[in-house]
Amino acid sequence: VAVLLAAATAAAPTVQGVSAERLFDQIEALGELSDTTPPSITRVLYTENDVRARDYVKGLMRDAGLEVREDSVGNIFGRLAGEDDSLAPVVSGSHTDAIPHSGKYDGVLGVLGAIEALRAIRESGVTTRRPLEALMFASEEPTRFGLSCIGSRAMCGRLDPDYLDTLRDENGTAFYEAVTSAGRGGGHENTASILSAALIPAGGIHAFVELHIEQGPLLEQEGLDIGVVTAIAAPASVSFDFLGNGGHAGALLMPYRKDAGLAAAELSLAVESWALGTKAIDTVATTGVLQVYPGAVNSVPRESHVEVDVRDIEEKRRDHVLDMIIKSAEQIADKRQCEMKYRIVNKDPPAPCADDVVAAVQDAADDLGFKSMRMVSRAYHDALFMAQIAPTGMIFVPCKGGVSHRPDEFSSKRDMENGVRTLALAMAKLAGV
Amino acid sequence: VAVLLAAATAAAPTVQGVSAERLFDQIEALGELSDTTPPSITRVLYTENDVRARDYVKGLMRDAGLEVREDSVGNIFGRLAGEDDSLAPVVSGSHTDAIPHSGKYDGVLGVLGAIEALRAIRESGVTTRRPLEALMFASEEPTRFGLSCIGSRAMCGRLDPDYLDTLRDENGTAFYEAVTSAGRGGGHENTASILSAALIPAGGIHAFVELHIEQGPLLEQEGLDIGVVTAIAAPASVSFDFLGNGGHAGALLMPYRKDAGLAAAELSLAVESWALGTKAIDTVATTGVLQVYPGAVNSVPRESHVEVDVRDIEEKRRDHVLDMIIKSAEQIADKRQCEMKYRIVNKDPPAPCADDVVAAVQDAADDLGFKSMRMVSRAYHDALFMAQIAPTGMIFVPCKGGVSHRPDEFSSKRDMENGVRTLALAMAKLAGV
Ligand SMILES: [Mn+2]
Ligand SMILES: [Mn+2]
Ligand SMILES: [Mn+2]
Ligand SMILES: [Mn+2]
Repeated sequence: VAVLLAAATAAAPTVQGVSAERLFDQIEALGELSDTTPPSITRVLYTENDVRARDYVKGLMRDAGLEVREDSVGNIFGRLAGEDDSLAPVVSGSHTDAIPHSGKYDGVLGVLGAIEALRAIRESGVTTRRPLEALMFASEEPTRFGLSCIGSRAMCGRLDPDYLDTLRDENGTAFYEAVTSAGRGGGHENTASILSAALIPAGGIHAFVELHIEQGPLLEQEGLDIGVVTAIAAPASVSFDFLGNGGHAGALLMPYRKDAGLAAAELSLAVESWALGTKAIDTVATTGVLQVYPGAVNSVPRESHVEVDVRDIEEKRRDHVLDMIIKSAEQIADKRQCEMKYRIVNKDPPAPCADDVVAAVQDAADDLGFKSMRMVSRAYHDALFMAQIAPTGMIFVPCKGGVSHRPDEFSSKRDMENGVRTLALAMAKLAGV
Repeated sequence: VAVLLAAATAAAPTVQGVSAERLFDQIEALGELSDTTPPSITRVLYTENDVRARDYVKGLMRDAGLEVREDSVGNIFGRLAGEDDSLAPVVSGSHTDAIPHSGKYDGVLGVLGAIEALRAIRESGVTTRRPLEALMFASEEPTRFGLSCIGSRAMCGRLDPDYLDTLRDENGTAFYEAVTSAGRGGGHENTASILSAALIPAGGIHAFVELHIEQGPLLEQEGLDIGVVTAIAAPASVSFDFLGNGGHAGALLMPYRKDAGLAAAELSLAVESWALGTKAIDTVATTGVLQVYPGAVNSVPRESHVEVDVRDIEEKRRDHVLDMIIKSAEQIADKRQCEMKYRIVNKDPPAPCADDVVAAVQDAADDLGFKSMRMVSRAYHDALFMAQIAPTGMIFVPCKGGVSHRPDEFSSKRDMENGVRTLALAMAKLAGV
């Protein structure tokens, strides 16, 4: 297959000058913009460090000779003109927001790598037929409002403003207040207008490719350079609140307890058990958030809050697990005489990557002599939503031990350079020369 | 029995003018000094609202004609001179600190009630042989440093300064820094000196009585006015930390997980199960704190922190449950391949009340025509520690629905007035007239 595709894209240019050193220095510099001490990274949408990171990224885009614009939600684009600048661009990007106490590479590689790829294309004297764009999405992680991919959901019109307005961050702040107080929002008067203004019209993007660390161990285990992503697993998340009676840990005798904390504990074990129950390696379910209130050692928990993430490459199996988890929550609440409310935060379909984009990535990796494999992305990405409006693909590079969302997340300079070189060539191929 | 004791204390004076209205107004006023919006009360040792509450209580003591002093730890005494002021005083008091999102009455009744009792004694023109003291303990609740009864532990020399110095609040602040930055500490250079200065010498207190809401449903259910406490249940608490691997909720497949959150969940269910396993109604065990890190929906918990409270009126049975819980934690850690550390925060013996004090309380209640019962305190109190240095007793009054540590905690004016009248008379009997 690789030979055939290579033949079909024989006009590929030579892109030189991708610098892993520069990329590494930029990753380190961006890592300093964190609410926690690096290598532990915490960077949350529209907070001070997030705004600083935006300024830093815009500066890098300008340095790389790109024309910068930011939309109303805070998606940032750095554009390199094409021969025919009226054509839809080939776009690559990712995110720089980071969940609490995570690492330096998740998302960041895809943003800084896209800028580096465009810099190298420009400095190699290559002009593609279509324009190229490096993109930093407003936020991929669900940290602030419990909802992932706010930037890409907005771009592809998959974000209901009324729903977004119901969400609150941990301080009770709503999206509109957060976006405007960070100096974003484009002067729009409400969330609906902000989201409309960020919408990408049909055909507005010719192709989208996202470079990302694998966040799994396979490439490293197999000794490969590049993962050519063929599909992105289907994510869902649901939150639960239990309300019991609460009371004094000494005085409230065991038979009279309606312990909301134990209801949450039981649910988290049920989540694990339903995931294991499918006996499919591709089913994963996680209780990432478990909070009890009032949270004092001498107080029986009166309330609890649980957030569950369920993913699978098979949507139907994923939905079954989700249904069973909700059923378990109902039974647990019943047994423990707690009130229970739940809310499905998101339940997205899986995304197959576009054949053309997969081919361009595979072709680029082959041209450059990299060892690659086809693989599924189990983590989800803004690419999941971009796939709804544009032919989409992803490029994975190895990360140490498959570790991600941790301070010790790491990708080597060589692996990152291989990824950026593959990206640059794939973008050039997709944009035509 | 009541008849015999009444005869033995026939010289009891008449104390008049206890005002439930005044007490109620003071409780409401103190309720305003809270980090959360009343009726939800949060007042934590050495914070701004705690310092304000101290000033408020000192003002009330002065208004009641008491001589005010505060020791190095922050225990506050209001003294009414006796005929022979060189004798050891009869002391009554409780606490005003409040765990997050709790209520207005726990502890507060015992502080303001003691001041009201002494006011009434003074205004009734009664002078007792021994001096009387109203006491506000520095803090009863374990909110800030995870350790309860810091004030009374210090007074009775049951607090190791080296141990106290190892504790940190949720912001990483140590005790010495907290006490001094709240303007307390008496100018001492280290925790050891602060604690020494607060020590009450042997024989320094003639008798101690604490007035408190029941924090259980029995008095209300039986239609009684006064609980005459005969013993205080033995409390223990232990904290656990699990360390797993953590990782991305999509990419870290189920077989590779070492989920510290699920270890915590399993432990909390084991805690319940060991408490139920004794089949004794007096055994209670609670997981009041359960925290997972990083606490993001799309991250497998890498660490968790659990705090468990175990109590029983039988120390041996309590210790067995505690041992089994620790064993369970070890087994769970083993099964889930997590590292586990635990720390026994406290493990105190139960305290029997002193016969003389129990008799004085019973006698006072009988003299005043109140319906009473003997009972065990399942919650623990500063009285538990005072019992180590002085003959000690407690007076319980009903609270609505047995509810405590909740915003809807409530005790009626009539019930509070009955309690304060019983306290005043019992103190007068113990102090002699
Ligand atoms: Mn991520
Ligand atoms: Mn990412
Ligand atoms: Mn309490
Ligand atoms: Mn109390």
